[in-house]
Formats: sequence, structure tokens, C-alpha cells
Amino acid sequence: MADEKKLVEAITSMDVDFAQWYTDVVKKAELMGYSSVKGCMIFKPAGYAIWENIQKELDRRFKETGVENVYMPMFIPESLLEVEKDHVEGFAPEVAWVTYGGLNPLQERLCVRPTSETLFCDFYKDEIQSYRDLPKVYNQWCSVVRWEKETRPFLRSREFLWQEGHTAHATAEQAEERTQQMLNLYADFCEQVLAIPVIKGRKTDKEKFAGAEATYTIEALMHDGKALQSGTSHNFGDGFAKAFGIQYTDKDNKLKYVHQTSWGMTTRLIGAIIMVHGDDSGLVLPPAIAPTQVDIIPIMQKKAGVLDKAFEVKEALKAAGLRVKVDDSDKNPGWKFSEQEMRGIPVRVEMGPRDIEAGKAIIVRRDTREKTEVAIEDLATEIKAILDRMQVEMLERARAHREAHTNVATNYEEFKEVVATKPGFVKAMWCGDQACEDKIKEDTTATSRCMPFEQEHLSDVCVCCGKPAKKMVYWGKAY
Amino acid sequence: MADEKKLVEAITSMDVDFAQWYTDVVKKAELMGYSSVKGCMIFKPAGYAIWENIQKELDRRFKETGVENVYMPMFIPESLLEVEKDHVEGFAPEVAWVTYGGLNPLQERLCVRPTSETLFCDFYKDEIQSYRDLPKVYNQWCSVVRWEKETRPFLRSREFLWQEGHTAHATAEQAEERTQQMLNLYADFCEQVLAIPVIKGRKTDKEKFAGAEATYTIEALMHDGKALQSGTSHNFGDGFAKAFGIQYTDKDNKLKYVHQTSWGMTTRLIGAIIMVHGDDSGLVLPPAIAPTQVDIIPIMQKKAGVLDKAFEVKEALKAAGLRVKVDDSDKNPGWKFSEQEMRGIPVRVEMGPRDIEAGKAIIVRRDTREKTEVAIEDLATEIKAILDRMQVEMLERARAHREAHTNVATNYEEFKEVVATKPGFVKAMWCGDQACEDKIKEDTTATSRCMPFEQEHLSDVCVCCGKPAKKMVYWGKAY
Ligand SMILES: [Zn+2]
Ligand SMILES: [Zn+2]
Repeated sequence: MADEKKLVEAITSMDVDFAQWYTDVVKKAELMGYSSVKGCMIFKPAGYAIWENIQKELDRRFKETGVENVYMPMFIPESLLEVEKDHVEGFAPEVAWVTYGGLNPLQERLCVRPTSETLFCDFYKDEIQSYRDLPKVYNQWCSVVRWEKETRPFLRSREFLWQEGHTAHATAEQAEERTQQMLNLYADFCEQVLAIPVIKGRKTDKEKFAGAEATYTIEALMHDGKALQSGTSHNFGDGFAKAFGIQYTDKDNKLKYVHQTSWGMTTRLIGAIIMVHGDDSGLVLPPAIAPTQVDIIPIMQKKAGVLDKAFEVKEALKAAGLRVKVDDSDKNPGWKFSEQEMRGIPVRVEMGPRDIEAGKAIIVRRDTREKTEVAIEDLATEIKAILDRMQVEMLERARAHREAHTNVATNYEEFKEVVATKPGFVKAMWCGDQACEDKIKEDTTATSRCMPFEQEHLSDVCVCCGKPAKKMVYWGKAY
Repeated sequence: MADEKKLVEAITSMDVDFAQWYTDVVKKAELMGYSSVKGCMIFKPAGYAIWENIQKELDRRFKETGVENVYMPMFIPESLLEVEKDHVEGFAPEVAWVTYGGLNPLQERLCVRPTSETLFCDFYKDEIQSYRDLPKVYNQWCSVVRWEKETRPFLRSREFLWQEGHTAHATAEQAEERTQQMLNLYADFCEQVLAIPVIKGRKTDKEKFAGAEATYTIEALMHDGKALQSGTSHNFGDGFAKAFGIQYTDKDNKLKYVHQTSWGMTTRLIGAIIMVHGDDSGLVLPPAIAPTQVDIIPIMQKKAGVLDKAFEVKEALKAAGLRVKVDDSDKNPGWKFSEQEMRGIPVRVEMGPRDIEAGKAIIVRRDTREKTEVAIEDLATEIKAILDRMQVEMLERARAHREAHTNVATNYEEFKEVVATKPGFVKAMWCGDQACEDKIKEDTTATSRCMPFEQEHLSDVCVCCGKPAKKMVYWGKAY
């Protein structure tokens, strides 16, 4: 069985070549495939199922805060994209342009949405008349296109899937509150569901979204010490409202501009899951997001009663609320174990004729490989307990890894030394000048990840120029 | 309150001007909005929520039959679209072309997918090697673009939302089985969930999908007597497999072509719901698909205890599994009733101080306007019973309407007379020649909707040319 061997062949070790390890996992866990369209990827069932679970859980949390889903066109007329100056400058260089509809050239070029602020503004302009029409708290799930030169599965591709929330409020305070509320929602989701700890903070002006007054971000640290921006929430103030003329009549009968926000999370979260939790045997999925949580692998499945028992157990676990499958393929158990590990299924259950006779089964936990012998009637309870522990411990392990890979630098020599030799975040003070950010990027390739909400006073002066410091910043090389 | 009046102003009566009635309902029930992009529409929350429920229910049914979801790129290189001859001829004239990526012209034009057969074929070509890799039963939820000249909310727009299933099988029998299975799934969904009865049948060669060997369809009849194709399922045989070279090694070690199917349903189903069930007060949503099933409208809500009780009832109904909201806006009850009717919420609960004191509330059913006085503690049980009855009776009413608007013609004079004077389906015999279909369309604007699986023998000869008849066909004017 030549086909099967390919999957179990060892993948590149993450310590040898992290980038190659990542590509190997993406491929062998069958998460995605390459398409004929350069820079665009195919989400295979195992990859898309993770996204479906992310969607389901995020969407539920959104709706609890009053979010309503809508769907806007995928095209933006060039003139509409150009209404807000900073925004068009940020996006125009990297959009795809539709110039023909059928056999006829279009009178005006349409870009395939790279993000939909302009469409929402155009819509809100007519939709919002009175304070009674506020707030608008809309979101859409869709794909967007950015004509990137270098692409990487899940992390950067010309088309990706995301959600984009766009809200309009009567006051600046309400807009700021929503911006922070969504950032907190994102952070909780990452930590509780994806078991990925994040730093919450604000982006510097250099790194903020094109057209935003303030961009807040959650930053996660990957296993290789590189940072990944995992979700952003933008407060636009009334900048877009003024550019688009989105005004409402307030209770005092005065015409006022609305205040807007937007916030988004994308399929790059799948990349984060891989790079935070994976190991040299493949993917490790947090139980809360795993499409399959339990893989029952029968041993000597041709012996009478083994498969029947496996499916009986499957039904019992399913009834207990677990996502479970039986691997009854004609591959041998060792191969099935490898496949379950590669796919990151949190728990496997091994059961052969002798186990069944003794009324027992073996549970193996994916992340620690801890083995437990359990009475078959206790399986559901025991597996649930293991999944709960695993979910918590994966977060703790990721947090410990991040702490171990977060360093402090108080002068520029030290800063350069740390960036060069210690993969991870560097905490250092900053004067607030973009010139220092530019110099740091030039000298080290590290960028400012965020000005964390939890500030620390590490020194009085900027790590780069020595002028008085204004903020403590997380720096790092980033995906 | 000028804003509010607009909504309750009477809409055009459906008997006076059905097209205008439709547009009025779409607008006043706030299902969709027009965008700056000609021919593209905006799904507002009330419209998108219906689509979300359609998705949830269809997706659940798909997965029960083994369907796995994936996501393919939205772009198709021109050369890939051209691989299958019939297919490109059918779609090339109506696609949108991307010719620039960022600031640079593309070496090859990309079309925005009008449908994704070619992408799935290109993917399957590499993905399928052995009989062990079959069947592939993949589906995707996405938007597609067809550069239509005339557009109409939900029924025809340049971009619309849909699902497209694409499967590959080892044998012709398995492909045919899947094609029919999905058509039956669609029919059951329409009848059980949307309360829309459908005719199942096969399209003539003239009306079949570009590149298909056979197209099966479900056809529904709208209130105005026009037909709406509501879902299609195509058997491609091995035509695409031969064009794309999708082969597998079978158990007998021989290289064979796969057999493929595709099947889709779109947001035009929302148009069908409107046009089958709506009335002169607006939308009427089948309970199974209604985003909100119960609208609690407090009377004299400023009186102490009224709103508290309304929200208490809301929680009780929610706990009983109902989708419910309280309308506590500052509008008057009469206006709220009109709004609930316009939005098609299946049941409203009216409760004022005296009702509450007496421990009672009034239930009003949207479709029949039947009023029932019910003890508050019985509300959940009673409303569930009403919703169940309403779901069944809406289907029965729609079926009775279709039967009353289905006529038979056995000669051409009669056929023309029926099409001209009796809106609805016409059943008539056909010889199998496209010339007769063309003539009928030319003379009457009616088209062949399908050759129903349930054939009847109405006469021996074609209704058009008088030659021996091969099939009984449903004819009709269609959206
Ligand atoms: Zn400085
Ligand atoms: Zn004929």
C-alpha cells in the first residue's frame, strides 16, 4: 500500500526546519491543497471543518452581543474605493480588478473586495437617518482578495476566508466600547476555544489599519518564536462617516456624524493552531475546536464482535455529546495511530478482542501520549474529563512557552542581541516616533506588535533612540 | 413618526400588480437593499437570517448523506474554463473577468466563478488515484457571479449565494444514484421545511446544464402562476472526467474514468418563499424556516408589570425551543402588528395588563389570522401546536393552489389558449424534438419545465407537431 506509506513517513522535525515542518503538516493532515490559481488555496474537508467550528463558535458569541449577519456584494466600484483617502492608499495596490462583464468592457473597473468598509459606508449612508436607526451592528462571513506576492497556506493567500464586522454608533464612546468589546471577545475565543494565549494591545500608527483612528490587536506567539496577529478591531472615529456623509438626526434634532468600527478574524487562525500546538507527529487540535474529538481504532477488527463493539461505543460516545468516528479501514492499527496523530484528533481509543472481553479499552491522549486503561462503560465520562484537562493544559503549555520566549531589552545593543539570538517577543520602551520603528525593522526585521494594555515600566528611555519613552511595546518578527 | 408610517402604508395588492407587490414586500420586510454595484444586491439581516436557516438545515441533511464541505478559489483561469467545450460555451458569455492584479496586468485572465465544475475537476484529477479514493462527495457554500442583463431581487442577480455539490464516483450507477438522492433531498427540504410543493423531473436537452448528460430539477409554482426552478441535480457521466483526465485504478488494476455529479440550491429560494406564501400584508414565513417564530407584542407596555411579564414569557418560550422576540419599541401596538405581519413572523402574542391579570394572552396566527385566547402557562404548548399546524397547512394550501393552476392541453390551439388565459403549469405531450420546444417558446413564451418522473398518458401525439409523443412535459412561463 504505497499510498498509505506516504502519510506515515516521518515529517520534517520542527526543530530542523520549522517552515518545512509546517508545510508537511498542512499537506499530510490534508488540511489544504494547491490550486491552478497562483496564490489561491483549496480548503480540503479536514481544514474546512476546523473553519466551520471556528465560525459556529464565533458566530454564537457575536450574536450574544447583538451582532446581525448580512451579505454585501463582492465588488467595489473604483470610485467608491477612492472615497476615503488613507483607505484607498492602503488597499488599491493589492486588489484584483474586474474589467469585463461577459463580452463587454465595464464602464468603471470593479475591484474584488479586499475588505468592505466602503460598501458598508455606502449602505449606511442611506440606511441611517435617525438616532433610532443606531447602533448598526452588522457582520458578514465571506472571502476577500488581496493580490499578495508571497503566499503561505492559511497565513497569507490571495483569497482567504474571514468575518468582517462593521458597526455604526451615535457616539464616540459607544464606538470605542464596541471596538474593545470585540477585541475582548476575540481574546477570550482564542484562549478558551483555541487554547492560544494572546497579548491584547494597540497598534502603533505605522501598523494600524488604513483609515482607522485606532487599531487594537491580539498577538499570539508561535512555537518558533514568531508572532502572529490573530485578530484586529478598529475604531474609525467619524473619519469614514465624514468621507461618506453618514449622518443622523439626534434626539436634539441636530445632524451628527456616526462613529464606526470594524473587526475581523480570518482563516489564518488555522495556521496559528498548527504552529502553536503541533509537534513532530503532526497536528494537535484543541478539543473544543476539533472536528473529530475521538478516533476509535479497533485492534484485530476482523475478529467477530470487535467492529460491532467499536460502533456500539461510538454511538454511546456520540450520545454523550462527543464528536467521534471509528476507523474501520483496512489499514493496520499502527498506521491508523499515526494517521490519528497526524490529523491531531485529541483522543484515540484502542480496543481489541482481549480488551473487549475484559470490558476495557485504552485511551491515548494526543498531546501527552498519556495512556489510560478504562472500563468501557466509563469511557464517555473519562474521555470528557481528559478532553477538559487537555484543553486547559494546552493553553497553559502555550502560555508557558510564550513566557519562556518573552524577553526584555533596555538598550539597543541588548535589543539587537535578543532579537538575533532569542526567538520570541521582546518587551522594550519606545519614544513614540515612527523613525525608531523604521530603524528597528531595518536593523533587525522585528516590528512593533502592539502597545499592550498591560503596560510595564522597564526604563525611562526609548530602547532605540534614548529619548524619553512613552510606551512599553511588544516587538517581534512576525508572520 | 414619519419613518414608521412608511412601513405600514399599504403595499401594492398582489392581484393588481404581482411584480410590484413582490418588490414592495422585499423592501418593506427589509429583506434586501440595492447596492452601488449594478445588479448586485445587499442581503439585509432579515433576508440573510432566512438564508442562514436554509443553510443550517440543508447542511445538516447533506452531512447525514456523507457530504463533506470544502472551499475552492473564486477565480478560474480562462484556460481551465475552456477545457470542457459545452461548459465554456454555456458560461463564457456571462462571466466577469479579472484582468489586473494590483498594478499589473495578469498574464492570463481569471473569471470569477459562475459555477465550479472546472475547479473541482482540476482538483480531483490529482486527488483521485485509486478506487480507495472514491467516492468524493464534496460541497461548498459560496457566492457565484453571472453577468446577467436583467436582475431581480433574489431571483436573478449578478452575484448570488448558493451551495454547489460536486461528486466523483467509480461507476455510472453510483453517480446516477447520488444525482437522484440529492434531488430527492432538495424536494423533501422544499416540502417539509419551506412548505413548497415541487414537481420532480428531468430537463429536456435544450434546458439542461452546460456539460451535463442529464439534469434533474424540482419546479415550484408561484402564486402568480409562474414556475420557479428551485434546485437542480446534474449527472455528468464521464464527460468532464474525459475532458480533464480524471482516472482511477480500479480493483481489477485497470485505469477507469470517474463519473461525476453536481447539484445546487441558491438564494432564489427566498424569492420562492415570498412568492408562494406571501399575501397583501407582506411576507408569510413557514415556521420551520422563520428566524423569529413568535413576536410578543405588549399592550400598554408602560403599565407596571407588562414588559416584565412579556420578557418572562419570552424566556419561557425560548426555553421551550422557540425563536422569540419581544417588540418593546415605542411604536403603538397597531403599528407593531403591521410590522410583524409584513415580516411574516408566524405567530404573534398580544398581552396587556388585563390579559396578564387574567393569566391569559392572545395568539394570532399569521397566515389565517386565527385568534386564540390561551392561558399564559399553556403558551409554549399551544404555540408549538399552532406552528406545527401552520407548517402543514401552508404546504397543503400551496399544493391546492398548484393543483388549481395545473391544466392539461391535448392540441396546440388548446395549449396556446391555456397558456394565454390560465396562469400555471400546462401538462402536455411532446415528441422529443427541440423544434417543438422552440416553437412553443416563440409562440407562447412558455418553456418546458421538466419531464416529470410521474408520467401520465394524456394523448398519443405531440401537442405541437402532432407526431408520436414520447413524454408528458410540464410547461410554463418561468422566472
Ligand atoms: Zn525612539
Ligand atoms: Zn413535436
